[in-house]
Amino acid sequence: MRPSARNRDELREVKFTRNYVKHPEGSVLVEFGETKVICNASVVPGVPRFLKGQGKGWVTAEYGMLPRSTTERMMRDAVTGRPASRSQEIQRLIGRSLRSCVELEALGENTITIDCDVLQADGGTRTASITGACIALVEAFNWMQKRRMIKKNPLKYLIAAISVGIYQNEAVLDLDYAEDANAETDMNVVMNANGEFIEVQGTAEGKPFKGTDLSNMLALAQKGIQELIIRQKRLLDL
Amino acid sequence: MRPSARNRDELREVKFTRNYVKHPEGSVLVEFGETKVICNASVVPGVPRFLKGQGKGWVTAEYGMLPRSTTERMMRDAVTGRPASRSQEIQRLIGRSLRSCVELEALGENTITIDCDVLQADGGTRTASITGACIALVEAFNWMQKRRMIKKNPLKYLIAAISVGIYQNEAVLDLDYAEDANAETDMNVVMNANGEFIEVQGTAEGKPFKGTDLSNMLALAQKGIQELIIRQKRLLDL
Amino acid sequence: MRPSARNRDELREVKFTRNYVKHPEGSVLVEFGETKVICNASVVPGVPRFLKGQGKGWVTAEYGMLPRSTTERMMRDAVTGRPASRSQEIQRLIGRSLRSCVELEALGENTITIDCDVLQADGGTRTASITGACIALVEAFNWMQKRRMIKKNPLKYLIAAISVGIYQNEAVLDLDYAEDANAETDMNVVMNANGEFIEVQGTAEGKPFKGTDLSNMLALAQKGIQELIIRQKRLLDL
Amino acid sequence: MRPSARNRDELREVKFTRNYVKHPEGSVLVEFGETKVICNASVVPGVPRFLKGQGKGWVTAEYGMLPRSTTERMMRDAVTGRPASRSQEIQRLIGRSLRSCVELEALGENTITIDCDVLQADGGTRTASITGACIALVEAFNWMQKRRMIKKNPLKYLIAAISVGIYQNEAVLDLDYAEDANAETDMNVVMNANGEFIEVQGTAEGKPFKGTDLSNMLALAQKGIQELIIRQKRLLDL
Amino acid sequence: MRPSARNRDELREVKFTRNYVKHPEGSVLVEFGETKVICNASVVPGVPRFLKGQGKGWVTAEYGMLPRSTTERMMRDAVTGRPASRSQEIQRLIGRSLRSCVELEALGENTITIDCDVLQADGGTRTASITGACIALVEAFNWMQKRRMIKKNPLKYLIAAISVGIYQNEAVLDLDYAEDANAETDMNVVMNANGEFIEVQGTAEGKPFKGTDLSNMLALAQKGIQELIIRQKRLLDL
Amino acid sequence: MRPSARNRDELREVKFTRNYVKHPEGSVLVEFGETKVICNASVVPGVPRFLKGQGKGWVTAEYGMLPRSTTERMMRDAVTGRPASRSQEIQRLIGRSLRSCVELEALGENTITIDCDVLQADGGTRTASITGACIALVEAFNWMQKRRMIKKNPLKYLIAAISVGIYQNEAVLDLDYAEDANAETDMNVVMNANGEFIEVQGTAEGKPFKGTDLSNMLALAQKGIQELIIRQKRLLDL
Repeated sequence: MRPSARNRDELREVKFTRNYVKHPEGSVLVEFGETKVICNASVVPGVPRFLKGQGKGWVTAEYGMLPRSTTERMMRDAVTGRPASRSQEIQRLIGRSLRSCVELEALGENTITIDCDVLQADGGTRTASITGACIALVEAFNWMQKRRMIKKNPLKYLIAAISVGIYQNEAVLDLDYAEDANAETDMNVVMNANGEFIEVQGTAEGKPFKGTDLSNMLALAQKGIQELIIRQKRLLDL
Repeated sequence: MRPSARNRDELREVKFTRNYVKHPEGSVLVEFGETKVICNASVVPGVPRFLKGQGKGWVTAEYGMLPRSTTERMMRDAVTGRPASRSQEIQRLIGRSLRSCVELEALGENTITIDCDVLQADGGTRTASITGACIALVEAFNWMQKRRMIKKNPLKYLIAAISVGIYQNEAVLDLDYAEDANAETDMNVVMNANGEFIEVQGTAEGKPFKGTDLSNMLALAQKGIQELIIRQKRLLDL
Repeated sequence: MRPSARNRDELREVKFTRNYVKHPEGSVLVEFGETKVICNASVVPGVPRFLKGQGKGWVTAEYGMLPRSTTERMMRDAVTGRPASRSQEIQRLIGRSLRSCVELEALGENTITIDCDVLQADGGTRTASITGACIALVEAFNWMQKRRMIKKNPLKYLIAAISVGIYQNEAVLDLDYAEDANAETDMNVVMNANGEFIEVQGTAEGKPFKGTDLSNMLALAQKGIQELIIRQKRLLDL
Repeated sequence: MRPSARNRDELREVKFTRNYVKHPEGSVLVEFGETKVICNASVVPGVPRFLKGQGKGWVTAEYGMLPRSTTERMMRDAVTGRPASRSQEIQRLIGRSLRSCVELEALGENTITIDCDVLQADGGTRTASITGACIALVEAFNWMQKRRMIKKNPLKYLIAAISVGIYQNEAVLDLDYAEDANAETDMNVVMNANGEFIEVQGTAEGKPFKGTDLSNMLALAQKGIQELIIRQKRLLDL
Repeated sequence: MRPSARNRDELREVKFTRNYVKHPEGSVLVEFGETKVICNASVVPGVPRFLKGQGKGWVTAEYGMLPRSTTERMMRDAVTGRPASRSQEIQRLIGRSLRSCVELEALGENTITIDCDVLQADGGTRTASITGACIALVEAFNWMQKRRMIKKNPLKYLIAAISVGIYQNEAVLDLDYAEDANAETDMNVVMNANGEFIEVQGTAEGKPFKGTDLSNMLALAQKGIQELIIRQKRLLDL
Repeated sequence: MRPSARNRDELREVKFTRNYVKHPEGSVLVEFGETKVICNASVVPGVPRFLKGQGKGWVTAEYGMLPRSTTERMMRDAVTGRPASRSQEIQRLIGRSLRSCVELEALGENTITIDCDVLQADGGTRTASITGACIALVEAFNWMQKRRMIKKNPLKYLIAAISVGIYQNEAVLDLDYAEDANAETDMNVVMNANGEFIEVQGTAEGKPFKGTDLSNMLALAQKGIQELIIRQKRLLDL
């Protein structure tokens, strides 16, 4: 029995709110149950130095948490003077995943930065971020096409992400904080609309996991991500 | 004629959403028109070193902006490695104002930190922050009283804040971004429920202002703050 | 009775020493009683990036305190690794005030930085800084005119600043440290030679202040600033 | 055909040099072909604050690269003023993996820090680090047992790590830099002596990977890690 | 012929102004010609952690330059976010030299920090700093003895410092900036009242120096330091 | 009797291992007894801003210690967020010494950075660094000449460095850690192949030293450096 009484292969309620903030070129509030993340896309002409003059664009991400998005208040990076290493790891994952679904040549020498800011955390903030960021990215592409900044849509395919884990010896889908804090294994999976893997990150928190655990978790992840991508397509009329 | 077609002494639409985030001991989303700020109160036992052993509590504030709360994306403090000096100035103002309305002795050796995070900026983020933070603070006091952490309510009076300015040679109330960017003078006023001043900060942006300008602006501020405090009282059943 | 036995509307002894340091393009030691601040103006060709190509100049200020300018030794910013937030707030005030009295177009694409460094603090360091910085700025303009770097003097008018406050329920002018530490309200006022306001910053330290307190303080400030500007004019032969 | 002419399932030459540095409580130079990493274990009494008083120990890791361990010289963290985010991600992985093989209760309130410093990089520095760090950790346990700082050996099992990837559409084991720079997928796997998984981190660099790719890579990783653990056991007489 | 027309073995005019700042426990403005340095001594009970419980005191120094103490304005450490490495090297030298003349046991568990801040630089700021800091230190000892914080004077002997160099193939004493910028060798020497060496730091700026150059420079330094110590003794009535 | 049973004028065993790391343009492991330092030279086209357009090159050095190169583990600069001031002082010394032996005009607008990283410290790391860095620098010159990046060899002469000190009232050569920790005076000397001085840095650690001590130490240093330069020449076939 899961704390939330969900089935082993059941997602939390998923909600996307578009145009959540008015300034960005793409803006989505994504909710996986009680986890709420704002994903804002900013389009800026130009690319980082290492890409200059190659006619290609760049996509990157930054991730942050409001100090009281968590049960206990966390110090701001502005106070510690350095970005939290967990945040850096997550934003590297988000950026890498998003770049995998973009034809950078079609973007021209423009940079899109996706800011993922967690308003409220209840497990799965990084998978919610990737799933919402993909929508904000598509919105930014649409914005650029309307202004004729780009000729063709640079999107190769949609991507989404979900967490899976071993909780009380069973594989479960989309862990909330109550499960995550007690899971033996925690795995984040990013896949594309073709059912291919973009990223697999599994960590034995409590005890090592076996090959069969891994297979079970991957099967759940595949199912969950398919559902998320259906939701994304419906929202974006794709 | 104001860009928003408001009267000179007319506030933007003001909205408070309580329990906006579930973890904090007090949480309010405050909206002054298109300006949206989350105010989260965190109660932590203990006080800063300079207060230890005096039986008094402490109230402080931190202020931040989401990178894309503004028209152009701003760099995160985590990237620059230091807090923006404007943010520091604003959080010092918020903290100072909040402390003025608290009997620190009644708080015991506890610290309340109010995080004001701007989701969307359209002028007046600091005055919205103070007005919303006061509500989150009262909610935190209520939370503490329910848990018997404190015997009496430490609140001396409610406070609220509003901006006034000289726009096209006339004093106006509650400037939005379109006005603020072109105002000759910009003034932020913090007052309490008794109609007394907590803080007055006026700056000649374009040209110096006269004594009569100052009087006109102060009169508008007084009117606006009275309206805000009525709204606060209704919300809090005070 | 004031600790210094001064009348309520009496300034401390004011002293300006020109050419205090030999390298800067303008250099003044300003003393408000026991408060001593060095104001050094540096002229550098070029402007910050946001101003390039507009044919306008820039004026900015930095403020610092020697570690033992205060009763208790303060840590250096070089040790803490970040500028003190109080210093940043003060240098933003000084820079803003100075820019208000300069025709930036007449300055050409040059930057003047005024460094205000406190040798000895006894209350009122920010108002002494502004008052002295204005003189160093005029000296820098003279230096530039002699070298034909500029055609006309960019000065619009002189400015000066003074603190006022409510001490033992009465408005007083130019608070020294003994008063400042016990004042109920502390207000800093910057005005120009035409008797107009540049900046008004009032803070209720102990208890809120009323509209009449505000009027009394402003009247004292006006009187004090007039005296300071007479002193500046005599010194500069204006 | 691999650039190194190795078989698809063939490790590079692996070498361990014990007592490489004389001061640490455990010190190993590990070489995976041309990749060379120093792993130094430091034993210090006491634990981080969040563990105090629980009777448990702590194991952590830090990872760094000499500036010219790479083809192009990298800037030192001391110059940039912040740790490289890639280094932080790697040291979090190393620390997490090492903690999984330690009974922290048996360690007493002591902390072991493993420093992994790359002398020369040629692909696979993080897997070489984990494999070498495990040996340095065992040496530190032996050192503690000799001094009777601990009663029983806290080691649960040995662990080792290897990289696998898809190179020219085929799964290959233990990628060197020439392969790594051109691989379509890169995966790092940490396993224990019982053939269980500790960590799986797979990233589609070029194009997404399928479920069968994943299975092939995991099979290679399992084979490679078994060989590494045999080498570790021989070295440590286990 | 020296730029200043001094003899090869002639010091610049030396001036000490006591009680230059009113707050410190010892305060001296030292002038070596146009070089002006404030030396302020601060006495604080307690010692750094590595000395706790040993019954000994500590003496340390910090060195800074006002941004416009030099011909061209320098950036503040607060802006760069880190102390200038030259400043750190100098303050380590000052601190080490001062500790050599103090019986730390006689100081009790107290720390004296000497802040040396350069108002105006014209060559020799580090030697002026050491020479002035020694006086501020003695003043602090006197202050402590008056308050019976210490029983005996911890001073072992006075120290002073001077620069020497090879300028146009000849050894010269006490280089000013015009000489220093063109010297082939620059050497700073610290000696005590007994004519013994505390520190010798010689650097070939232009071309290497011979043993005879070294002897000539040391002889000049010895002469200059004797004169400085006579000046110190007269000032302090020793 | 010295702890190592060496004669007063006897160097520790000196060893140079060339091509220690494969990537740099010059790479040497230098060993002075148990002290081991990697010296890696990196050639990069271009020069720092202050040298641009002058047709001259630049030589600079960086110095670091592995966290456990010392008896007790040291924190990384990446953790403290700032370079250790001792390291900065040493790298300034190394860079200055190396520049003295290079004709910067002959180097063209190229920069050579020598990284000196201490694997194991047992006294004399800075003198070993200079002595090894000189070899790595020559190797980098050879590498540039082979690629016709420079026409003539920019080396003016070889340099080497050694420490001397007063240990138990006698001058001794090349102090190891056991001596260094107890020496009364510690002096580092850098000389060139012509027997001229580049740098002399002597510090009275315990008690002041006399002129005769200084002469004795310098004589030992001269002897030791001559032996080192013979070793360098043999190694480099010069």
